[in-house]
Amino acid sequence: MSRKRAKGYRAERELVELLWRLGFAVMRAPASGAKIKKADYPDVVAILKGKVAVFEVKSRAKLENIYIGKEQTQKLLNFARRAGGIPYIAVRLPHIGWKFIKLDVNTEVNNTLKIDKETIEKAPNIAGVLADLNITKTLDTYLKQQLNTY
Amino acid sequence: MSRKRAKGYRAERELVELLWRLGFAVMRAPASGAKIKKADYPDVVAILKGKVAVFEVKSRAKLENIYIGKEQTQKLLNFARRAGGIPYIAVRLPHIGWKFIKLDVNTEVNNTLKIDKETIEKAPNIAGVLADLNITKTLDTYLKQQLNTY
Repeated sequence: MSRKRAKGYRAERELVELLWRLGFAVMRAPASGAKIKKADYPDVVAILKGKVAVFEVKSRAKLENIYIGKEQTQKLLNFARRAGGIPYIAVRLPHIGWKFIKLDVNTEVNNTLKIDKETIEKAPNIAGVLADLNITKTLDTYLKQQLNTY
Repeated sequence: MSRKRAKGYRAERELVELLWRLGFAVMRAPASGAKIKKADYPDVVAILKGKVAVFEVKSRAKLENIYIGKEQTQKLLNFARRAGGIPYIAVRLPHIGWKFIKLDVNTEVNNTLKIDKETIEKAPNIAGVLADLNITKTLDTYLKQQLNTY
């Protein structure tokens, strides 16, 4: 596994654990078989009582513009449309932590998707995802719930 | 990859393709890393507009009783509870095709789960899953829809 891939893998696993602790059922795409993965799946899918969030995960050493290939973006949006879910670019940054850039599921993607560093900087953390999904229970409640259901 | 594992893998892929054609967003657990897979994920998760079905996939050469380990069953049910989905044992048989045994998501699992061959024989095909999820559009509609959204 390349160093870059290993970093991406760690970020995905961290996101999976965060979402699981919040009560979601979470599935990560195959770590190996990068070809299959890119063809079919987003990096991470999280479901809580029928509410769905779909993530493409990017880990970066610093705040910078992020570019996502046209095809990868289309797959993410298509998966989200079928699932009835919300698509996100989940960006992992040192010190800052997670930033979640919500995409419009109906966007027509004709080019590489550029996400400005300003957009990333202003994007919400995981609380923004919970709000988008209309999950109103507090983090605290989820943590308690998680202790009972795991 | 062992011969048995290869057969299971083919069955999973077939189920993924079937569900995808029906309009679902579908995700399959990692094919490699069997340890991780058993710990965390069901074999296949399918989502259609917030309706969720979760599958443990079994491929068999003939109709026979099927046994599923306690822990594997618990993981399946726990995932389904979090997702707000319906858990199934999906059995692939030669000539007969797919049979879907719906589990009660609230079952307390204290032992290996035994599914009688009579139960398997009587179980519905994919149409049963669509009915369970209250998906009332016909297969035909889905096939047309799929052509537009893929």
